[in-house]
Amino acid sequence: MFHQKRIHDYGVKIGRLKKGPLNAITDVEGVTVGHVTLSDGDMQTGVTAIIPHSGNIFKEKLIASSHVINGFGKTMGTVQMQELGVIETPIILTNTLSIGTAADVLIQYMLEHNPEIGRSTGTVNPIVGECNDMLLNDVRAQFIKKEHVFQAIHNASTEFLEGSVGAGTGMLCYSLKGGIGSASRRISLAHGEYTVGVLVLSNFGILSDLMINGRSIGQELKEALLRSWEEKDKGSIIVIIATDLPVSERQLNRLNKRAVAGLSRTGSIITHGSGEVVISFSTATKIPHDKPSHCLTIPTIHEEDMDEVFRAVVEAVEESVLNSLVTATHVIGRDGNERPAFQDLLKEFDIHL
Amino acid sequence: MFHQKRIHDYGVKIGRLKKGPLNAITDVEGVTVGHVTLSDGDMQTGVTAIIPHSGNIFKEKLIASSHVINGFGKTMGTVQMQELGVIETPIILTNTLSIGTAADVLIQYMLEHNPEIGRSTGTVNPIVGECNDMLLNDVRAQFIKKEHVFQAIHNASTEFLEGSVGAGTGMLCYSLKGGIGSASRRISLAHGEYTVGVLVLSNFGILSDLMINGRSIGQELKEALLRSWEEKDKGSIIVIIATDLPVSERQLNRLNKRAVAGLSRTGSIITHGSGEVVISFSTATKIPHDKPSHCLTIPTIHEEDMDEVFRAVVEAVEESVLNSLVTATHVIGRDGNERPAFQDLLKEFDIHL
Amino acid sequence: MFHQKRIHDYGVKIGRLKKGPLNAITDVEGVTVGHVTLSDGDMQTGVTAIIPHSGNIFKEKLIASSHVINGFGKTMGTVQMQELGVIETPIILTNTLSIGTAADVLIQYMLEHNPEIGRSTGTVNPIVGECNDMLLNDVRAQFIKKEHVFQAIHNASTEFLEGSVGAGTGMLCYSLKGGIGSASRRISLAHGEYTVGVLVLSNFGILSDLMINGRSIGQELKEALLRSWEEKDKGSIIVIIATDLPVSERQLNRLNKRAVAGLSRTGSIITHGSGEVVISFSTATKIPHDKPSHCLTIPTIHEEDMDEVFRAVVEAVEESVLNSLVTATHVIGRDGNERPAFQDLLKEFDIHL
Amino acid sequence: MFHQKRIHDYGVKIGRLKKGPLNAITDVEGVTVGHVTLSDGDMQTGVTAIIPHSGNIFKEKLIASSHVINGFGKTMGTVQMQELGVIETPIILTNTLSIGTAADVLIQYMLEHNPEIGRSTGTVNPIVGECNDMLLNDVRAQFIKKEHVFQAIHNASTEFLEGSVGAGTGMLCYSLKGGIGSASRRISLAHGEYTVGVLVLSNFGILSDLMINGRSIGQELKEALLRSWEEKDKGSIIVIIATDLPVSERQLNRLNKRAVAGLSRTGSIITHGSGEVVISFSTATKIPHDKPSHCLTIPTIHEEDMDEVFRAVVEAVEESVLNSLVTATHVIGRDGNERPAFQDLLKEFDIHL
Repeated sequence: MFHQKRIHDYGVKIGRLKKGPLNAITDVEGVTVGHVTLSDGDMQTGVTAIIPHSGNIFKEKLIASSHVINGFGKTMGTVQMQELGVIETPIILTNTLSIGTAADVLIQYMLEHNPEIGRSTGTVNPIVGECNDMLLNDVRAQFIKKEHVFQAIHNASTEFLEGSVGAGTGMLCYSLKGGIGSASRRISLAHGEYTVGVLVLSNFGILSDLMINGRSIGQELKEALLRSWEEKDKGSIIVIIATDLPVSERQLNRLNKRAVAGLSRTGSIITHGSGEVVISFSTATKIPHDKPSHCLTIPTIHEEDMDEVFRAVVEAVEESVLNSLVTATHVIGRDGNERPAFQDLLKEFDIHL
Repeated sequence: MFHQKRIHDYGVKIGRLKKGPLNAITDVEGVTVGHVTLSDGDMQTGVTAIIPHSGNIFKEKLIASSHVINGFGKTMGTVQMQELGVIETPIILTNTLSIGTAADVLIQYMLEHNPEIGRSTGTVNPIVGECNDMLLNDVRAQFIKKEHVFQAIHNASTEFLEGSVGAGTGMLCYSLKGGIGSASRRISLAHGEYTVGVLVLSNFGILSDLMINGRSIGQELKEALLRSWEEKDKGSIIVIIATDLPVSERQLNRLNKRAVAGLSRTGSIITHGSGEVVISFSTATKIPHDKPSHCLTIPTIHEEDMDEVFRAVVEAVEESVLNSLVTATHVIGRDGNERPAFQDLLKEFDIHL
Repeated sequence: MFHQKRIHDYGVKIGRLKKGPLNAITDVEGVTVGHVTLSDGDMQTGVTAIIPHSGNIFKEKLIASSHVINGFGKTMGTVQMQELGVIETPIILTNTLSIGTAADVLIQYMLEHNPEIGRSTGTVNPIVGECNDMLLNDVRAQFIKKEHVFQAIHNASTEFLEGSVGAGTGMLCYSLKGGIGSASRRISLAHGEYTVGVLVLSNFGILSDLMINGRSIGQELKEALLRSWEEKDKGSIIVIIATDLPVSERQLNRLNKRAVAGLSRTGSIITHGSGEVVISFSTATKIPHDKPSHCLTIPTIHEEDMDEVFRAVVEAVEESVLNSLVTATHVIGRDGNERPAFQDLLKEFDIHL
Repeated sequence: MFHQKRIHDYGVKIGRLKKGPLNAITDVEGVTVGHVTLSDGDMQTGVTAIIPHSGNIFKEKLIASSHVINGFGKTMGTVQMQELGVIETPIILTNTLSIGTAADVLIQYMLEHNPEIGRSTGTVNPIVGECNDMLLNDVRAQFIKKEHVFQAIHNASTEFLEGSVGAGTGMLCYSLKGGIGSASRRISLAHGEYTVGVLVLSNFGILSDLMINGRSIGQELKEALLRSWEEKDKGSIIVIIATDLPVSERQLNRLNKRAVAGLSRTGSIITHGSGEVVISFSTATKIPHDKPSHCLTIPTIHEEDMDEVFRAVVEAVEESVLNSLVTATHVIGRDGNERPAFQDLLKEFDIHL
């Protein structure tokens, strides 16, 4: 998107399924993504908003599910999502110490658009995910202000940048610059063609573990760099899966559990310090906030159709991580800390993927 | 049923909802229950089978869910039930050390009726629940033989006995004789009238905790008896919830979590040694084993209708436990161990409920 | 405490175990509680802070566990608590739409006291619980400001008020005024005497379900009042359990699961709209933030000692709910909405407990 | 072991950590493994027993934990293991339809060695894992008899065969012959050197997905074979992790969750039909069945030491799967169904790893 060079532009083909036209989470009809990027000296952070559909999501909720791969993270809103099986707000991604601000703005945003909240109906469940960008960003300064969160929601579009943007501005991936990445896959079932889209906020892994399509490129780079970073992973990854497949919250949860296979293929061992959380939603059915007089009718695929979906998740997660890595740009941040861009290292050491 | 005197025949009214015609789990259309009772000296045990519907349940599965209140138990089959959200066999209840035999017979029963298992299709997931009847039964003798399990399935009917029968033969309830109990409730929603039916295998609690409709009858009895039992709970309770409500597996799981409120109203503190497991299924939708070419369509109630269902579960569980207690008869079993019947104590001490 | 009339002052004795000297969560050595109460017209809300120990809790964490009874709630911080088994901040309770603010302040508070967060060490996991006080409070106005959260932490003490105070200012309990309640129990094991303390933020239940020690006082009051409230539960309850017992996070989780039995004894059926979450911690062992060179040594009780602990939890939760009910005072709030105090109704209708 | 050619004998080095002397689960002091192999025509099945320590495991339990990667499986005993955090029997692995028999024998075995079960103490929780060997074995025939299970326990030793033996006799791995595989890793922490050992019963994956150390060998073989199997995964994998590390059940659970990264590196996308379950135990602390008068003392590593352990798990799981694949031998089974051995294909097509 926007002419960024992505992993498939390097000739690397991840998996065997067909991609969507944008090869992004926004290939799922109605899904949009917006960024606010704050990049200036010690301030290397931002906000990314994922809007699940273009209508009023509080009034027309979507079936949703979350899954914790490693719980060393502060993601908000998963308790209610698991109990009720729906998502009713946009998803906000930001840095770890700004989750309070993000939640507060998301609540205000929902109140503005839904005057009955806290009056004739109950409350609202904000969804906020985070990673820790403390190496490049002065996370203690809590740079994220209310207007940034509103702006990220406002900026949402089907085309969006990847790499060192939005919530990904200060994030790392396998000790290099990481951040936002996305990909999608198309699936043909007997009753229709469907899309699985993924967006990741990558901030995990150590260089020596990095693999691309089975090649231990991390080891190669480490030797080329002759440099020792503190190879200690204090990262996280948030994985958002969107789909137009008719699936239940239980089936979405099964999808979520396949994300880890995509991460593992890039070399991850799921380190202790890495908060890894997956959130998924399906746009196939809108669940009305207000009770109708009739039963709801939920179309769902047969369980025997899941394997193709699982493959789509694994491939799209793997490719999203790699897209976050290859699109990210070199950042010098807090106290002069810096992380090189993978794309620059490829050029510097004349490495071809 | 069968002229047993049940808790409402004592004038005790549990809750405010309407009962079904049998006030039993078999008020849910298609559900049947069968017992085999082995009661002779040291042998005080048995088998109870719950048949979820009258067709081929492997080919037409039902949406199902399980919930562990306290996991000090050996219930089988819940891993797959949670993953796939369905039940595909009858449910067998028996004593703790006979679960292997019960599972083996249930597998054989399913193989007989489904020649494609292990050939053109995969395997089958047997559901077996248990409680420990070691005080009254020589549980080490493993009296349950294959024919008993087959016979319990064969005996299944809409009318069935409660108390010291089937798997309940040697079980205790609040230190007195317990066993099988059942009850049901009717619910009116905008789109129809529905039934929630419960069956329990009770084997938990200590006498001093027993409450009936708020009255500490356990304390009264303990003082009357002037007898000290070892007031240590090594029991369990299995709760089966059947309903014809159109509900998802997530919603069934929410029902399951209300069972504990019904148990608590009879005085339980959910002791350490008590394996307490809830299994529920809905007869509203049949999930085909073989993949159709179209999407499945799952009717489900709106979440705002759940409160009435929760109340039905709480009331039916409470009444089921009390029915298991008041219908149970005095048993002298292993090594002369015995437990009195609650109904006999009421007469002996001239206590009116 | 502070001369409020509590449930035992009405002659109601809950359970059989011994109480601690304050009969409050602060009977657990080191635990303190602070309130900020905002009560003026449409503003009927506040903040309650529970401080787990008097030292630096980030540097010396406590073993902790959470449990969701019903997940229709927005409690923050439980994902990491379950993964790592520790609590590393105070617990803040407030209204549902102020969780963002509360989290933000709690983060700032932790940053102030721990300059290494976000520099030489990672981030911090704020724990925030909430209930929805929208009937009496203009929850949309988000009255809670940063200073209120700081002040609640600052106010923490071993003596604290119950009822319509702090986070409980605008909360309901069984359709009457509810809020903060507390209780404690003492346990004697072979190796020592221990305390279990509970604090609840009550905001659940409908009047017709209220029971006190088995008596259906809710039904009595409803008939006396001849008044129909909307008997729809949109509430929540947060239960905090503190103990000095040496227990593992798994054992704490087992404690948490018994809280529901205490709630059930007051009449709850755990309604759909009620977010019910339990958080527990043990002060017995401090887990160092920084890795020592030796193994940690965690003293834990044997599983066979759990029953006494479970009983303590059930009794203390039941009594805490009743304390929140009987100490609460009449509140007129948003748009003139009001809820009577249980204590006033007892006098008005000359009802003796 | 026993001169079988294992993956490292092919020059393939998995990961970077040191192996134990046997490179097997039995490198963990006290752990032994026994097989019974039934290989004759339509009968291609067996039993594998893992003995956690050489003493009376019912009287001296080990801290244990289980984790479900994909729950399309029938593993028994995990409910109680999660509740109480211990294992108290050997682990039996066999085919899916023989779990009843296996459980029954394991119960009998425990009764023989513990005359107090069902008398002065409660019951016992048998642990049985399974995979479905229906392609090569007539699983409907239920060939496993009681004596086979007893014999497998009796055969347990520190040296044991891999591949088409024991429970692995009829199992598949990536559409080729699979079965039993094992590996181990050594870890150095400040307070000592420890071992992580893994044993797998592999029965999952489709050929086209197979990867060895990043190489898509499955694709290569598929093209060489010019043969189309039904590439549908109806398999499973059971992963057993043993360690002498002092870890809590929560920490063991974190280990379990890393097994999937090892599986993914061999190409798995965790298909729908594959029941994938991980069970782990630590030999570091023995938990007495009978309550002592003092507190237990549980040594545990600091969380910051987990990364090295996670890496050990990932590497040992990956190598165990590959060992199960390269040691397996060609089997012709039920109805003449057959699966080639990977080792034979390497020779046939002159492929070097």
